[in-house]
Amino acid sequence: MMSSTTTLHSLTIDNINPHVKVAKYAVRGPLAVRSEEYRAKLAKGEKDLPFDTVISANIGNPQQLDQKPITFFRQVASILECPTLLEKEDVLRDGLGYKQDVIDRARKLLRDVKSVGAYSQSQGAVGIRQTVAEFIERRDGYPSHAESVYLSAGASSGVNTLMHIICAKPETGILVPIPQYPLYTATLSLLNARCVPYYLEENKAWGTDMGAIKEALKKAKDEGTDVRAIVIINPGNPTGASLSEEDIRSVLEFAAEEKLVVLADEVYQTNVFEGKFTSFKKGLRDLQKANPEKFDSLELASLHSISKGMVGECGHRGGYFELVGFDPEVAAQVYKFISIQLCAPVIGQCMVELMVNPPKEGDPSYPQYKEEYDGIYNGLQKRATALFEAFKQMEGVECQSPQGSMYLFPTITLPKKAIEAAKKEDKQPDDFYAFKLLDATGVCVVAGSGFGQKEGTFHFRTTFLAPGTEWVGRITKFHKEFMDEYRD
Amino acid sequence: MMSSTTTLHSLTIDNINPHVKVAKYAVRGPLAVRSEEYRAKLAKGEKDLPFDTVISANIGNPQQLDQKPITFFRQVASILECPTLLEKEDVLRDGLGYKQDVIDRARKLLRDVKSVGAYSQSQGAVGIRQTVAEFIERRDGYPSHAESVYLSAGASSGVNTLMHIICAKPETGILVPIPQYPLYTATLSLLNARCVPYYLEENKAWGTDMGAIKEALKKAKDEGTDVRAIVIINPGNPTGASLSEEDIRSVLEFAAEEKLVVLADEVYQTNVFEGKFTSFKKGLRDLQKANPEKFDSLELASLHSISKGMVGECGHRGGYFELVGFDPEVAAQVYKFISIQLCAPVIGQCMVELMVNPPKEGDPSYPQYKEEYDGIYNGLQKRATALFEAFKQMEGVECQSPQGSMYLFPTITLPKKAIEAAKKEDKQPDDFYAFKLLDATGVCVVAGSGFGQKEGTFHFRTTFLAPGTEWVGRITKFHKEFMDEYRD
Repeated sequence: MMSSTTTLHSLTIDNINPHVKVAKYAVRGPLAVRSEEYRAKLAKGEKDLPFDTVISANIGNPQQLDQKPITFFRQVASILECPTLLEKEDVLRDGLGYKQDVIDRARKLLRDVKSVGAYSQSQGAVGIRQTVAEFIERRDGYPSHAESVYLSAGASSGVNTLMHIICAKPETGILVPIPQYPLYTATLSLLNARCVPYYLEENKAWGTDMGAIKEALKKAKDEGTDVRAIVIINPGNPTGASLSEEDIRSVLEFAAEEKLVVLADEVYQTNVFEGKFTSFKKGLRDLQKANPEKFDSLELASLHSISKGMVGECGHRGGYFELVGFDPEVAAQVYKFISIQLCAPVIGQCMVELMVNPPKEGDPSYPQYKEEYDGIYNGLQKRATALFEAFKQMEGVECQSPQGSMYLFPTITLPKKAIEAAKKEDKQPDDFYAFKLLDATGVCVVAGSGFGQKEGTFHFRTTFLAPGTEWVGRITKFHKEFMDEYRD
Repeated sequence: MMSSTTTLHSLTIDNINPHVKVAKYAVRGPLAVRSEEYRAKLAKGEKDLPFDTVISANIGNPQQLDQKPITFFRQVASILECPTLLEKEDVLRDGLGYKQDVIDRARKLLRDVKSVGAYSQSQGAVGIRQTVAEFIERRDGYPSHAESVYLSAGASSGVNTLMHIICAKPETGILVPIPQYPLYTATLSLLNARCVPYYLEENKAWGTDMGAIKEALKKAKDEGTDVRAIVIINPGNPTGASLSEEDIRSVLEFAAEEKLVVLADEVYQTNVFEGKFTSFKKGLRDLQKANPEKFDSLELASLHSISKGMVGECGHRGGYFELVGFDPEVAAQVYKFISIQLCAPVIGQCMVELMVNPPKEGDPSYPQYKEEYDGIYNGLQKRATALFEAFKQMEGVECQSPQGSMYLFPTITLPKKAIEAAKKEDKQPDDFYAFKLLDATGVCVVAGSGFGQKEGTFHFRTTFLAPGTEWVGRITKFHKEFMDEYRD
């Protein structure tokens, strides 16, 4: 019944929003789409693929890769979804083994939200924001207030909100680390604003390089860009870097001097394997104590999420951001902006509460919570190390040791022959490599070009979420064969 | 520690995104904010207000107003949140009274999504989209395909996506009914595109007036606006109008002639009290059968939501849109756009499945489902009628009979004295009235100016969701006192 002749359509690729057209988001791009096609083929029982499972190492999606949810969180959520269960507390306890703290927490959250089926305030249920503020206080040792906390549908939605506020005109620019999680560049494209890239230092474990940042800012200013903010992803995505307190201080000093808003993406704050996490909020409060005049007016937005860490509740779309030092008139515009989409998913808001206020020592659910949490953490660390060791053995591959987040981002030195073969297929060399890897092994990674990288270097990002090590063997075997085919 | 001197801030009301600044969204505006302040005061036990409850009649949020969720939906959801419950089927059945179809449905949905904590495909889990397509087929008697269905975080998110695709430049315009749900005008403001308003006919039960639509289009074209789409809200929000098949046909004919994309907001499709709902999809397929040449290339996007109807699961943020006749290259851009925000909340996706595929006659949960569904429907109709009857008695108030949706939108003839008093407070006259109503009674409605209305006319929108009739008495009493104070 429908015509597919392009010319008959009112909307065509040539007349839709050009800013959507130019946006790039490789994490779910053609490579991921092809991997889903393979998965569907295997599910149908087709036998013509050279692998029997697809390993989605392209995206930090723990529960898609068999990570079990934390029992306490999900038991509470089951009651939130069906509050009439509270009329049968004895069955919950004796029949289903729910501990008393599960039941109590569900009652508390139902008081906060009334029903998970009701819209909350646009900023999020106030009782939950209060719990988030208390968590931030405990973490940093500095006060935090519910009024400054905004619950969001994952950190992505928070980034979208903040960038909408900041990007005022086509000349507006935001400093973004390269490599970066492509949400940032994609959102800047959609908003017709400028990405001001600053390169991270691969040979210093992907740390920030203040020289590079200053140079990037100067260059942007010279080109007429009105640079308003700097994005920091700590721990890093895709790099896995974990910043030191000193690195954080340097960024804040620079931002204060240049009057830049700091956007701190801290969604991997519990995925830290080397050193310890310091929040930008704490860094800022420390500096303000020492030098209020210089730092009191600095604006910081820091973001967190239930999708990462040991929680891994991506599908629930929960997160929050805290605004520090923002003009109340600007905060009112943030509120209005989020109110247009009504509110963040309420069960996701409840998951935020559970994440920041888990069972404590002495609570009935604590032993199981602790066991599950530690089990996930140790499993991630073990797999990260195994993958890192494998990369070290691979010809022409170099990789920083896993410090944090859920990713490794190795460099691959690709032979000229491979680069030429890629050119023939009109692909970036690392994209070419990633497609070959997927086609041969079912392992889906994301090419470095999807995150940005220095000209002439090639990388890929892989999560270390997939269970077992068999798939790591697939990668090493493929890599050897690839090199045998294309070695110069 | 923080300075509040505006000049010290990097971001100020004068340098943030001007398109955010001009966006208006009254449904959650200052009136709603004040009502929340009153609610917080009452919760603290403060006694100085002239009312003892706040009635949020400003927003269609049924479960905030004591509407109970449908038991079947929530029992399934409780298992989805805690799948280990399936290891104790006997306790679910014998201890908690879950019927077998609850357990079976939970298993089916877990096969579709694996875990509600995992990201789904960006377009939504394919098994759920398939169920949606089957629902559309049953409803309309025409085929529908999972590939054309996009699961979204409520209909609002779907509207946001579609408008992002369509709005290509500042001259792009979209025909929007006035009065309208302000999501449309707010989103157009954010996208720096043009709202092309067309007035609905109040004296024809707020139906569409083709003459007015054509005139609006002509005027816009004359002003250099590139009009690309027309929004229809059916049943209407805020008007409650329910369009006839003939009205729908006329709009589609007009859209085909003018090559406009049709955006059909059909979130109130089960909230129909007079006549019966016809979808734009069915209307289009009927016309295509009769005249394929004219209608085959028409592009239609129709939206639905779990927030309204008898489901009322606003907080779960679930919905879908179906694309009909879109160029595949454009659909690919829709996919990319939504992938940047990863996916719609997965438990909300499951709620969509439950909404479109509820228990059927003969299923164990059917009797209770039917009783709850009918109870909600009848309660809404009864309250709508009671409110309508009350409005008829009020001096200077006129109201169309309730046909559909969750709202009444009466006209109020305000005395000159009231209009002058409003001007002194720098308020729209109907806003002035709505604030007075809130301050005196705790009943929060939204002034007609928040939706748009013909110059010189005044309205307000009220939901008929709040239980009981006591609050209706508060309105009539207030209105009498208001008129006594301001009557000319």
